[in-house]
Amino acid sequence: MNEILEQALLYDFYGELLTSHQKEIYEQFILEDLSLGEIAGDAGISRQGVHDLIKRCNRTLQGYEDKLHLVEKFLAIKGKLHDINRILDEYEAAGDNAGKLVADIRKISDEIIEEL
Amino acid sequence: MNEILEQALLYDFYGELLTSHQKEIYEQFILEDLSLGEIAGDAGISRQGVHDLIKRCNRTLQGYEDKLHLVEKFLAIKGKLHDINRILDEYEAAGDNAGKLVADIRKISDEIIEEL
Repeated sequence: MNEILEQALLYDFYGELLTSHQKEIYEQFILEDLSLGEIAGDAGISRQGVHDLIKRCNRTLQGYEDKLHLVEKFLAIKGKLHDINRILDEYEAAGDNAGKLVADIRKISDEIIEEL
Repeated sequence: MNEILEQALLYDFYGELLTSHQKEIYEQFILEDLSLGEIAGDAGISRQGVHDLIKRCNRTLQGYEDKLHLVEKFLAIKGKLHDINRILDEYEAAGDNAGKLVADIRKISDEIIEEL
């Protein structure tokens, strides 16, 4: 997984545990893709200050994941749900939708994926 | 959900964020079901000290849940996976296992439930 995507995922899970100041800066970098210079200008702090804050946030978020492994767990579940959908696709492609079974299971599976 | 079960679930998700001292005491109370007096005797602290520590752990764990909602999320996913299994049961009970479809989906669904 690329680094920005991984950080965005960690932020999605554990971001609420950062301070509101950290969240504000970190979101501009990770989600809005602003440069260090732009963020520094907006926040009235140095470019180096922004850099350090983001590095510290990365470490904090990764620290939570190292302890809780919830992103890892969610990705594993997501992978298995995609397996379910793939099997349903194969049945459908073979012209076999087993009555309402395929549609019923797919509906729930999609709902779970939405939630992840 | 009863309170002990709820606390055990919160501990299961966020327990690693407690200190090792907190974990030791909290586990004796929540998982091993020891009394405050027994825990106090073992740990060489007062009964009131154990009581306060457990109360503080409950608040800490609940604080993480209030911010992250991961237990709530996992319970919702678990409920939906049980819905999937219920639908599979109905198909099987009706003598319709749709080739290998029911077995294939159930296998993955059970794997996910294991992981939750």
